[in-house]
Amino acid sequence: MFFASDNAGPAHPKVIEAVMRANDGYAMPYGAEDAMARVRGKLRDLLGMPNAAIYLVATGTATNALMLATMCKPFQTIFCSEVAHIEEDECGAPEFFTSGAKLTLVDAPQAKMTAEHLREAIDSTADGVVHGVQRGPVSITTVTERGTVYTLDEQKALVNVAREYGLPVHLDGARFANAVASLGCTAADMAQGFDAISFGATKNGCMGVEAAVFADPAHAWEFELRRKRGGHLFSKHRFLSAQMEAYLDGDLWLEMAQSANAACARLVAGLRNIKTVTLANDSEANMIYLTFPRAAHRRLKDAGAQFYSMGTMDGPDDEPVLARIVCDWSATAENADRFLRILEG
Amino acid sequence: MFFASDNAGPAHPKVIEAVMRANDGYAMPYGAEDAMARVRGKLRDLLGMPNAAIYLVATGTATNALMLATMCKPFQTIFCSEVAHIEEDECGAPEFFTSGAKLTLVDAPQAKMTAEHLREAIDSTADGVVHGVQRGPVSITTVTERGTVYTLDEQKALVNVAREYGLPVHLDGARFANAVASLGCTAADMAQGFDAISFGATKNGCMGVEAAVFADPAHAWEFELRRKRGGHLFSKHRFLSAQMEAYLDGDLWLEMAQSANAACARLVAGLRNIKTVTLANDSEANMIYLTFPRAAHRRLKDAGAQFYSMGTMDGPDDEPVLARIVCDWSATAENADRFLRILEG
Amino acid sequence: MFFASDNAGPAHPKVIEAVMRANDGYAMPYGAEDAMARVRGKLRDLLGMPNAAIYLVATGTATNALMLATMCKPFQTIFCSEVAHIEEDECGAPEFFTSGAKLTLVDAPQAKMTAEHLREAIDSTADGVVHGVQRGPVSITTVTERGTVYTLDEQKALVNVAREYGLPVHLDGARFANAVASLGCTAADMAQGFDAISFGATKNGCMGVEAAVFADPAHAWEFELRRKRGGHLFSKHRFLSAQMEAYLDGDLWLEMAQSANAACARLVAGLRNIKTVTLANDSEANMIYLTFPRAAHRRLKDAGAQFYSMGTMDGPDDEPVLARIVCDWSATAENADRFLRILEG
Amino acid sequence: MFFASDNAGPAHPKVIEAVMRANDGYAMPYGAEDAMARVRGKLRDLLGMPNAAIYLVATGTATNALMLATMCKPFQTIFCSEVAHIEEDECGAPEFFTSGAKLTLVDAPQAKMTAEHLREAIDSTADGVVHGVQRGPVSITTVTERGTVYTLDEQKALVNVAREYGLPVHLDGARFANAVASLGCTAADMAQGFDAISFGATKNGCMGVEAAVFADPAHAWEFELRRKRGGHLFSKHRFLSAQMEAYLDGDLWLEMAQSANAACARLVAGLRNIKTVTLANDSEANMIYLTFPRAAHRRLKDAGAQFYSMGTMDGPDDEPVLARIVCDWSATAENADRFLRILEG
Repeated sequence: MFFASDNAGPAHPKVIEAVMRANDGYAMPYGAEDAMARVRGKLRDLLGMPNAAIYLVATGTATNALMLATMCKPFQTIFCSEVAHIEEDECGAPEFFTSGAKLTLVDAPQAKMTAEHLREAIDSTADGVVHGVQRGPVSITTVTERGTVYTLDEQKALVNVAREYGLPVHLDGARFANAVASLGCTAADMAQGFDAISFGATKNGCMGVEAAVFADPAHAWEFELRRKRGGHLFSKHRFLSAQMEAYLDGDLWLEMAQSANAACARLVAGLRNIKTVTLANDSEANMIYLTFPRAAHRRLKDAGAQFYSMGTMDGPDDEPVLARIVCDWSATAENADRFLRILEG
Repeated sequence: MFFASDNAGPAHPKVIEAVMRANDGYAMPYGAEDAMARVRGKLRDLLGMPNAAIYLVATGTATNALMLATMCKPFQTIFCSEVAHIEEDECGAPEFFTSGAKLTLVDAPQAKMTAEHLREAIDSTADGVVHGVQRGPVSITTVTERGTVYTLDEQKALVNVAREYGLPVHLDGARFANAVASLGCTAADMAQGFDAISFGATKNGCMGVEAAVFADPAHAWEFELRRKRGGHLFSKHRFLSAQMEAYLDGDLWLEMAQSANAACARLVAGLRNIKTVTLANDSEANMIYLTFPRAAHRRLKDAGAQFYSMGTMDGPDDEPVLARIVCDWSATAENADRFLRILEG
Repeated sequence: MFFASDNAGPAHPKVIEAVMRANDGYAMPYGAEDAMARVRGKLRDLLGMPNAAIYLVATGTATNALMLATMCKPFQTIFCSEVAHIEEDECGAPEFFTSGAKLTLVDAPQAKMTAEHLREAIDSTADGVVHGVQRGPVSITTVTERGTVYTLDEQKALVNVAREYGLPVHLDGARFANAVASLGCTAADMAQGFDAISFGATKNGCMGVEAAVFADPAHAWEFELRRKRGGHLFSKHRFLSAQMEAYLDGDLWLEMAQSANAACARLVAGLRNIKTVTLANDSEANMIYLTFPRAAHRRLKDAGAQFYSMGTMDGPDDEPVLARIVCDWSATAENADRFLRILEG
Repeated sequence: MFFASDNAGPAHPKVIEAVMRANDGYAMPYGAEDAMARVRGKLRDLLGMPNAAIYLVATGTATNALMLATMCKPFQTIFCSEVAHIEEDECGAPEFFTSGAKLTLVDAPQAKMTAEHLREAIDSTADGVVHGVQRGPVSITTVTERGTVYTLDEQKALVNVAREYGLPVHLDGARFANAVASLGCTAADMAQGFDAISFGATKNGCMGVEAAVFADPAHAWEFELRRKRGGHLFSKHRFLSAQMEAYLDGDLWLEMAQSANAACARLVAGLRNIKTVTLANDSEANMIYLTFPRAAHRRLKDAGAQFYSMGTMDGPDDEPVLARIVCDWSATAENADRFLRILEG
C-alpha cells in the first residue's frame, strides 16, 4: 500500500533492461550516442513537433528551471498557478536559473488557472513601465499539483490568452502521460500550442529522466549552454537516452500512466462510498487530495500504508485530517481495495 | 581501442547489478533510503572524516559548483590552476552557482599549482580593500587535468598555504581513486586537510554519481538547499546510492582505478620507446598528453582507435600533433599494445 | 499644485548649500571624508543605535535591495506586504541583489500587515523542508505605500512575531521622517526593534541620499562589498554625506516632514467635506489615495495640477476615478486650498 | 599637492551652479525632465551617433556593469586587459550584473591590448563547444588604467578584430575626455566603431554622473530595466542631467581634460630630469606610474602631498618605491612644480 508518491515506486523492468543494454561497451558521451538521435525522432513524431529541439535532463525541477531560464529574462515574471510546482516545490529553482525573475501567482480553482484569472494576472503587471517587472512566460501544469487535469479546451483557452499578449507558453508535464491517459487524447493533442514542454518520465516508471522540448529550435544552443552550466549535462548520457527510448517504445509511457490512473480511479470510486471521506477536489489522474478521520490515518499507517498526512496525528479521533494519495504505474487493485477496507474501518 | 575519455566506457557490472537490485519495490525518495545511510558511514570511514556531511550528486560539474557555492561568497574569488576543470570545462558553472564569484588562476607547471605560486596569487588580491574581490576557497584537482598527480607533500604544502591565509580548501576529486592508486596511499591520506571533497565515481566505472563531502557538517543544510534549488536532488535517489554503495564495496573503486592506471602505465612505457612520440608532461595516473606524427593519428583513427587529436588532420605527415589518451577501468593490455603497434607504424 | 510625487519637488536650500560647501577643495573619496564620520555619529544618536553600521546610498531601491541581500540567503523568502515597494516598484531589485530569493506576500488591510497575517504567511512556508524556500527577513514599510502609518504598537507586534520565529526585521523607511512626524514619536521610538533600517532622505528634501543602518555591525563589511559590487559606492561620496549632514542638522528632516504632512492633512480635511470624494484608506502622513469624478480630474489637469490619475480620462464625467496625491516639504497651504477649490468645481 | 585621484578633487563651479539651477521648482522624475532630452541631443551630436540610446548613471562601475550585462549573456566571456578596471577595481560588478559571465584577460603591454593578443585570447576560447564559456564583448579602456592612451589606429585595430569575430565592442571611457585631449582628435573620432560607450564625467569635474551610450537603440529598453533593477534609476534625475549638460556646454569637458593633461605633462617633463625617477610606462594623459626613492615619498607626504605609494614606508631610504600620481582638472602648475622640487630634494 505505497501511495506516498509516484517518485518512490520502482522503475519499469523494461526501463531497467534498457539501461543494462546501454552499458555494452563504449559510447560517445554527452548525448552524441545513437540512442539520443532515435529518442529525438520518436518524440518529435509523438508530439507532432517536427522541428523541435529536444534534450534530456535527469530531474523535473531542473527541466522546468532550465527551460524557463531560456524563455524568461531576469526582469520578467512567470505566470503560474498559486500551487504550481515551480512556486512551491523547487526551493526557488526558477528564480535561481533565471537570475532572479519573479513568479506572479494566478488564482486557480481546483489548481487550474482559468483564462479569466490569467488575463487578470497579466493585466495586473505594469508592462512597459520601468518600475515593475515585465511580462514573461505562462507556465501551465497538467496533471495539476492537486490531481486535476485541464480539458483540452481549458488548456487552449490559456494558450490563447498568452498568445494574445505575445507571451510564450511552457507546459510543466511532469505527469504528461497521466494527463493524456486521463483525457484519452493523443500526445500531440496535449502538446498543441506550447512553445516548450517538460515531458516527464521519472514519476511514471523511469529512474530519472525528463525531456525538454522546444517547438522552436532557435532556443537549442542557449539551452545546451544553460544545461551544461547548470551541471545537468551527463557525460554518460546514454543512461538517460536508454531510459527514454524504452519509455517511448511500444507506448510503454501510456500503458504505465493508464495503469496508475486506473488504480487511482478505483480508489476514488471506493472513497466516494465512504461517508467519512471528503474529496478536496476532483481527482482526474493519479493523485487524490482528501480528508478522512484521524483514527483512519492511524489505522492505515499501523497497517503499513504509506501516504502523506497533512496534519498532526495527535488529536481527536474523528477530526478530519487532510491526506494526499498518489498511485504510480505499479499500484495494484488489491492494494487499493485493501487501503479502502482499512480506511473504512 | 577506446581511449577518448573515462566517461565513455561502460559502468562496472557490479554497479549495474546494484542498480537493478535497488529497483526492488518502494523506497523513500530524496536520499532517505537505507542505502544512503550506509554510503554515508562507509565514506566517513574510508576518508577518515567521522563527522563529515555527505551527499550524492549525479555530475562532477554540479558537485564542484554546489560545493564551491556553499564555501564561497559572491564577492570572493576561488584560487585554482589555470587549467582547472572548474575554469575550462564547466561553462561557467562555478560563476553561476556562486552568483558571480571570480576564479583567480594560479600558475601550474605540469598542471600542478605550487605553494609558491599559490601564495603569489593570494597575495596579488587586494583582500580587505573594498574595490577588489576578496579571498575565497582554494580548489585543487588531483589527478590534474593533464594527468599528473600531486605528491602528498605537494598537496599538504598547498593546504598549509591556504590555512595560513585562513582560506578553506576544496578538492576536485573527479579522479580521486586514480590519484590514490597512483600514490599507493590510503583514501584518508588523500583526504587529509581538505574542508570539502568532490569524490568522483562517474569516470571510474559508475553510471553517474559523485559524493560531496564536507568535513564540517555545519555546511550540510545550506548544501542541501542549494542542491535542491539547483535541480540536483534526485527523487529516485536510491539509484545514486546504489551505485555508490557498489563502488565502495570491497574496494571496487580502488580496483578499477588500479586497472585504469595499469593500462595507462603500459601505454606510457611503450610510448617512451617510440622516438616520434613526445610526452607533454608526466603521466602519473590514467591520462596522457603527448605529441606524435599526424600520419600516426590518421593510422590509429583508420584502425578505429578513439582519442582526442588537438589539431587538424590536414597537413604534413610527420608534423607532431597533440593528443590526449585516457584509460578507464575497462582498458585492456591487449588494446594498449595494439594501439602502440599501430602508432609505431 | 504639484502633488505627483515627493520625488519631484526641489531639494531644500540648506541641502543644496551643504553640497556647495562640500565642493571646497579635495576630500578623501569613498566615504572617508570627515563629514561621513559626523553623519554616522548623528544617526546613531538619533536612532538610539549606538553600535550601528551606517552607510550612504543614492537611491531607495538600492538601499532596500543591498540591505536585504546582506540579510537574506538566495534560498530564503522575504515577508512583505502585497503592495510593498520592494514587490511592486523595484523591477525585481530584491530578487536581483539576493541572487534569486523570493518575496512572500502578506495580506495587508490598508497596506499594513497585521501580526496575524504575518504569522499566517510565515507558517505557510515549509521551513526546514528542502523542497521549499526557507524563512528569511520580514520587511515593513512605514509610511506605507498607501499613505497609512503603523502605530508603534502595530509595528512592535510585527517585530515580535519576527523575533518569535528568529527572523531579522527590515524597515523600508523611505518616508521614515513622515512616519515619525505622523506619530509624534521620536526617531528612536520608530527605530526600536529593527535589525536594519533604510532611512530615507531623497523623498523628503534631499537630492538623492539614503542611509543604510544595521543595528549589528557584523553586517558592515559584507554590506560594503555588496555596495561596491552593485556600483553604489560613490567616489565623490562627500556629496552624499553633505546632503545627509544638512538633513540631520537642526532637525531639518523633521521640520520638512511636518510641513509635508501638514499640507496633506489640510487636503484631507478639505476632501472630507467634498461629497464626490471618497478616500480609499486612511491618510496619515503625506500621501492620499482617493476617488473623485473624472470631470474633476480633467479640471485639475487643465489648471496645471499634477497628480497621478489611475484610470483613463475618456469616459463619463461623473464616474469616480482613482487618484494619488503626494505632498512634499515644499507643498503650501495655498496650493492645497486651490486644489480643493478646483476639485470641488 | 593633491595627486591621489581624479575622483577626490572638486567639481567645476559651472557644474555646481547647474545643479543649483536645476533645483528650481518641480521637475518630472526618472529622466523625463527637459534637460535630459537636451543632453541626449548634445551627446549624439558630439559622438557622431545620431540614433544612440543614451542614459545617465551616477557611478562608473555601474555604467560599465550595466552596459556589459546588456551586451553579454551569462554563459559568455568578456575580453579585457589584465589590468582593466572591470577586472581589478569593481569588486566583481561585471560578474554580478551579467549573472556570472567570465572575464578573459588579454595581455596588455603598457596596459594596452594589442590586436594580436586580443586575437590570441579570442582564439583560446572553445567557442561553439558546450563545455566552455562562449565569446562575448570586447571591452577597451582608454585612457588605460596605467595612464597610456591607444592611438586611433590601435583602437581601430582592436575594433576590427572584434568585428571579424562578430563580437560587440565596449569602451570604458571613464577618462574619455582625457583620451580625446591627449590625441587631439574629436569625440566622434574616439567613439568610432564602438557599440557601447561608458562616457565618464565624474573623474573630470562632475559630482557623479556618467553617460551610457548604445549605438544601436535596440538595447534601450533592456538597459532601462537593468538600470532600474540595479537601483540606478534616480528619481530626482534632474541632478544628473544638470551636471551632464553643464559638462557638455561650451566644451567644458574638453577644457577640463586639457587642464588635467597639461598639469600631468608638466610633471612628466620635470620627472624625466630627475635621475632617481623611473617612469613605469608612457604617461599620455593625466596619470603617471613611476618609482622614486622611499625617502622622497616620505618628504612629499610630510609636505602634505597626496598620492598613492604602492609599498611600505619602512625600509632603506634610497630603495625605489612605486607611486601613482593623478591630475584632475584643478591641478595647477604651481603644485606640480612644488611637487617636483620636494621630490628632487
